[in-house]
Order: sequence, then C-alpha cells, then structure tokens
Amino acid sequence: MDDVYQKSLELHEKNQGKIELKSKVPLANRDDLSLAYTPGVAAVSKAIAEVPEKVWTLTSRGRWVAVVTDGSAVLGLGDIGPQAALPVMEGKAVLFKEFGCVDAFPLCLQTKDVDEIVAIVKALEPSFAGINLEDISAPRCFEIEERLKKELHIPVFHDDQHGTAIVVLAGLLNAAKVVGKDMKTLKVVINGAGAAGVAVCKILLAHGVQDIILVDRKGIISQQRDDLTPIKQEIAWQTNAQRLSGTLAAAMKDADIFIGVSSGGVVSQDMVKSMGEQSIIFAMANPIPEIMPHEALEAGAAVVATGRSDFPNQVNNVLAFPGVFRGVLRSRKPQITESMKVAAAHALAAYVKHPTRERILPDPLDRNVAEVVAQAVEQAI
Amino acid sequence: MDDVYQKSLELHEKNQGKIELKSKVPLANRDDLSLAYTPGVAAVSKAIAEVPEKVWTLTSRGRWVAVVTDGSAVLGLGDIGPQAALPVMEGKAVLFKEFGCVDAFPLCLQTKDVDEIVAIVKALEPSFAGINLEDISAPRCFEIEERLKKELHIPVFHDDQHGTAIVVLAGLLNAAKVVGKDMKTLKVVINGAGAAGVAVCKILLAHGVQDIILVDRKGIISQQRDDLTPIKQEIAWQTNAQRLSGTLAAAMKDADIFIGVSSGGVVSQDMVKSMGEQSIIFAMANPIPEIMPHEALEAGAAVVATGRSDFPNQVNNVLAFPGVFRGVLRSRKPQITESMKVAAAHALAAYVKHPTRERILPDPLDRNVAEVVAQAVEQAI
Repeated sequence: MDDVYQKSLELHEKNQGKIELKSKVPLANRDDLSLAYTPGVAAVSKAIAEVPEKVWTLTSRGRWVAVVTDGSAVLGLGDIGPQAALPVMEGKAVLFKEFGCVDAFPLCLQTKDVDEIVAIVKALEPSFAGINLEDISAPRCFEIEERLKKELHIPVFHDDQHGTAIVVLAGLLNAAKVVGKDMKTLKVVINGAGAAGVAVCKILLAHGVQDIILVDRKGIISQQRDDLTPIKQEIAWQTNAQRLSGTLAAAMKDADIFIGVSSGGVVSQDMVKSMGEQSIIFAMANPIPEIMPHEALEAGAAVVATGRSDFPNQVNNVLAFPGVFRGVLRSRKPQITESMKVAAAHALAAYVKHPTRERILPDPLDRNVAEVVAQAVEQAI
Repeated sequence: MDDVYQKSLELHEKNQGKIELKSKVPLANRDDLSLAYTPGVAAVSKAIAEVPEKVWTLTSRGRWVAVVTDGSAVLGLGDIGPQAALPVMEGKAVLFKEFGCVDAFPLCLQTKDVDEIVAIVKALEPSFAGINLEDISAPRCFEIEERLKKELHIPVFHDDQHGTAIVVLAGLLNAAKVVGKDMKTLKVVINGAGAAGVAVCKILLAHGVQDIILVDRKGIISQQRDDLTPIKQEIAWQTNAQRLSGTLAAAMKDADIFIGVSSGGVVSQDMVKSMGEQSIIFAMANPIPEIMPHEALEAGAAVVATGRSDFPNQVNNVLAFPGVFRGVLRSRKPQITESMKVAAAHALAAYVKHPTRERILPDPLDRNVAEVVAQAVEQAI
C-alpha cells in the first residue's frame, strides 16, 4: 500500500496534476483565428442570444459536467478542505473523460454554507450540462442535492450517494442470483448512515426490499431514537419494522446481506457467523474493509465484495457515473430519475453474463460498460 | 464578413464548441487507476492537507485560469447574457491554451450582482491559479476587479481593461517612434470611457503622458460635468487640464493621437484633418472601426491601427493576456501589478525590431510573443 501512495505522489508531481484543456479547433492562421474568435464568434453568440437552445449545438456546454465539492468528506480522509480535495476531483474528471467521454471540471468551493453552495452552483449553470456533487458531508449533501435538483434545469447527481447505490444494487442482484435467493425477501443490514448508506437504503426500498436495518455510530436506527437527523428520521419510518435497537452485532444476527459503508475492521468473524446461511457481505470501507474477504469467507459468507481493486468483486462507482452522465447528457434529459438509476443497476448486473461468487460486477476497466449504462439511462423515463 | 460569420457558425456546429478536457495520466490498467484515483490519490490529498503549498506541484491548479463573465458586455453585442457569451469565453480559453500554454476554463455566471460575483469567484479560488475577468460591463467591472484583487490571493486581470491597455501602449510607443515624436508630450484623445478607455487612460498616465482628454457618449469628460460615475470623476481630475467641454470633434482638434474604443464610424475625415501633423489613429471599434484606415490615411494620418486582422497594425489582446498570465503563474506572483503591465507593453514594442507605419505591433499569430511577454512580467516587480 505504501508503494501505491509513493508512486501516486510521484505521478502527480511529475505531471503537475492530471488535467489540461484541449482545443478542438485549429489556430494556425488568421482565418482560423477569425472563426474561432473575433469577428466570426460574434455570429455564434448572436445565434444563441436569439435561440438559447442553440447553446447545445454551438458550444461545448452539452458535454461539460462540474464536479463540485467543498472538501468536507473526502475519501476516508474527512474534512480536509477544498484545496486538498482537488487531486480527488481531478481524478474524477479524468475518469469521466476516459470512461464516459464526458468532459468534467473540478470546482472545489471555499465554503461549507448550504445557501452559498446552492447559489454558486446555480450561478454557474450556464457553463455546464450537469452537476456531479462529490465528497460533501452528510447531512448537508442531502439538502444541497435536493435544492439544486429543484432549482436547476440540468441534471444533478451526488455520486457518493447514487453512484454507490447503483453499483451496490447491481452487485446485490447478481449476488442474490449466485446464492439462489430472492433479493426482495432478504434481510439487509447497512452499516453507515452517511450519504452512501442512505442512498443504498433508498434504492433497495425502491427495488422492493422490505427488511432493512440501518446502523449508524450510535447503533441501530429506529423510531425510538431521539437523536436522529431529519433524513435518518425518514429512514427510521421506512426500515426496521421490528423496532430493534442495539449494536451492529445485534442487527447482523440472521441477516442475509451486510452492506458496510462505514469504517475498517468493524465486522468480526463471529458477526458473520451469526448471519443466515449463504450470506452476502459488501465490505466497502476504504482502504481497510469492514472485514477482510478471506476472513468473511472463512466465517461462512458466500459472496464478498469490497471497494478494493486487489480483491474480486470491486464495487467501484466508475461503473456507474460515466455512463449515467453520458446517457443523460446525450438525451438532454433535465434530471437523473430514480428509474434511470435502477435501470443503470439492472444494465450493470445484466452485463455480467454468468455471475459467479467471484464475479458479480463488470470489470471497472471495461470500456464498454459506460455505453451500456448510458443506453439504459436513455431508455428509462 | 458574412462569409466569416457563416463559416464560424459551421465550425462551431461541426465541433460542438471548441474545448474539451484532456487527461495527462494513463488509465490503461488497474495500477494506473489506483495511482490516478483511489487508493493512491489519498496520499496526494493528505500531502496537500498537511502542506497547502504542495497544491502547486501536485495538482494542475497552478496552470488553470478561470475566464469569468456575466455576459453583460460581450464584444460589440452588449448584454447578451451568460449563455450567449459562452462561445466567446471558449474562444478565449482556446487562445490562452494555444498562445500561452495556460489552461483556462469559461465560467459564465447567471448573475450581475457585484456582491454575488465577488462571493462566487472567492469561493472558486481553490481550483484556480488566476482569474481573467471578461466582458463585464462598466462600471461594475471596476468594482469587481478591485474587490477581487483585495480579497483573493491569486492574480486577477480584467482583460478588456488591461489587455487592451498593454497592447495600446505598446503600439503607441512604436507609432510615436515611427513619426519621431516624444510620446509623453503628445496630446491624446480617447473616445469611449468604458473598461478599455479608462484602462488605456490610466496606463498612459502611468507612462507619463500629460495631455489626455477622455470623451464619453455625452462629450468631453471634465470636472465641470455633474453626471460622472466615480471612476469618471477620478479620471476628470487627472485629465483635461484645460477644462475643455464639447464634442469629440472639439476634443480632436490639434490632437496628436486618437484612440477609439467606442463605436463604428464616429470619426470623420474632417476630424482627422483637424488633428496635428503626423497624427496617430487607433480606431479599435469592432467590427467597424471609428474610421476606416484608408479614409484616415487619406485625411492625413501617419499611422493607423484597428482591431481587425484584415488591416495592418492589429491591436489584439492575444498579444498580451497569454504571456501576462504565463509569466505571473510561472513565477507564482500573487498580483499582476502596474509595472508588470508596463513591462509587458515595452516588451511587446521592443519585439518589433524595426517599427514602420504598417508594423507597430507583433503579429498576433506569432507564437514566440507570449514567452517574451512572460519573461518581462516575471522580471517586473
């Protein structure tokens, strides 16, 4: 691991970052200059001023997504601020381009104020075709996303929520298939009630999963708790029908599926042993999973997924966001709807022709995945 | 001209705009992914969180400039709004890249509120190394620039003001040389008291020119006028020592230099004839100059410059801004100072080894100019 870190530092230093601008037009002579810039460009601006819709065909706006963060919840590093978040956002932009043919630009904001962030993104709308919110801490991320979705005319997507939710649902669909269970009847425990946990919970509810328990740092989330944020209160009404309380260990007893979006090492082998037969473990804490795959398998788990590329079944958002945006931008739809997200998950799951215990998800490096996801999103409502 | 407009529309439509993102790192395999993104990138973010200065070596921030507009004063088109301004801003970004090796991104803001624009650009600071304000109408542009210069730690440059001023000063230095006059003793008339006119006036004052008259739509600007904005009041105290009043024609009588940043056709041959001998005309209204070059020459002008590429002596900001930013970013200076601007003008003038009536400025397409300007800026204080 130390080696990866060292090599990454070297790569970044050598290249001075990861992104640059590329011109799509020639500028070799006077004529080129007069077409790309003045006087010719005046006709292009005039055309858009007269028919605003032409911005989509005459400028590159239709391909640009803003990757917006305030640096408050970056990877496992937490609130490291907008500037230190920049390498992650540049990385995201690179993934957007390489996998989705979507041009993305990192905007790291020097404010954590919800009103200010909403006002800034709103003001920036004319330059972009979509907004990808990234690494903004809960619960602010929920409010920011909700308000932007209402106030903007372009798609807004919080990848930490919905990207994760799409890939998790895809993986679970295939995992359930592998163990021969009907996903909708299974008991699911989600550990971590931040952006990812809440979104995974919601997509599973939308998919018809009925027995879900969400666990946060203080234990099982239930209607009895009096310390819940509004979003957790909402979740409490839709989950934990038996009104259980207690620790993660209590929640996991007899569960069929464990989904960890929390922190490393919080699941023991005994906890896995207490689960139902043929259990499914998604231990996605990074870089240290909630339980290491070999330990989970040893304790009886049937399928194990993590967030890491060095184990089988990597849950990697890059399987979702490039294709989701490619599809929604290409079809010029104003929103990324719930049914688009579910369609993306089904497309991802179906892409794996013959799922096995060690292959429930496509390879994150497979360049064909984004187009498959894009088509599913385009066809959804 | 119609042909240029039609061809420009076709170029923009064919390419769907002019800019795209380019990744500087490979993403061919799992190792590449783990260095450019997770888990490796965590080390890069951590390094910057610990030593903020490292953002300049580990990310591309040091090369990115935001091209910021509200679309309120776009070319000769006026207040066409942020979206219709986008083709111009994309063009600017392309020029930054092609001539200055500076990466620039167009941010077209959906607000004209000075406080909001200042707050937005401030919040965006962590993603950029510099701010290029563009096509923001006067007098708001003056306040926005002043406030941003005070509140940001990165260089802020309003190209319509300072880019124009630098190139005009460079051109005048050589024009004065060609006609064998001492610039500081000449009588200068500037028609147009918007962003460009005010900035040209200021750089000439800074250069030691003593006899300047500024003319706006209502006539000669003088201390007697009671309809002046604060910036024009300031100018009134520094110019027009004889307290003249009246029309542009009155101002131009016996003048040595006419600088037009106004609108097409406002200067007649008689007005040129009323000027001093060997007069110098910078008729920069676009696309129609204040007076056509052949008319001015016929009426006795010795040197004529315009904003157009199809006449000799094109005053084109592309001679200044790419090099100015290249120099200031490379040396990581926090501001673009007055002396840097003057140094840039002198470097531009000196670049033309043997100035003639038809060649007082470098060719805007000369790729070596930006580096010469950059070095002058780096060496200035």
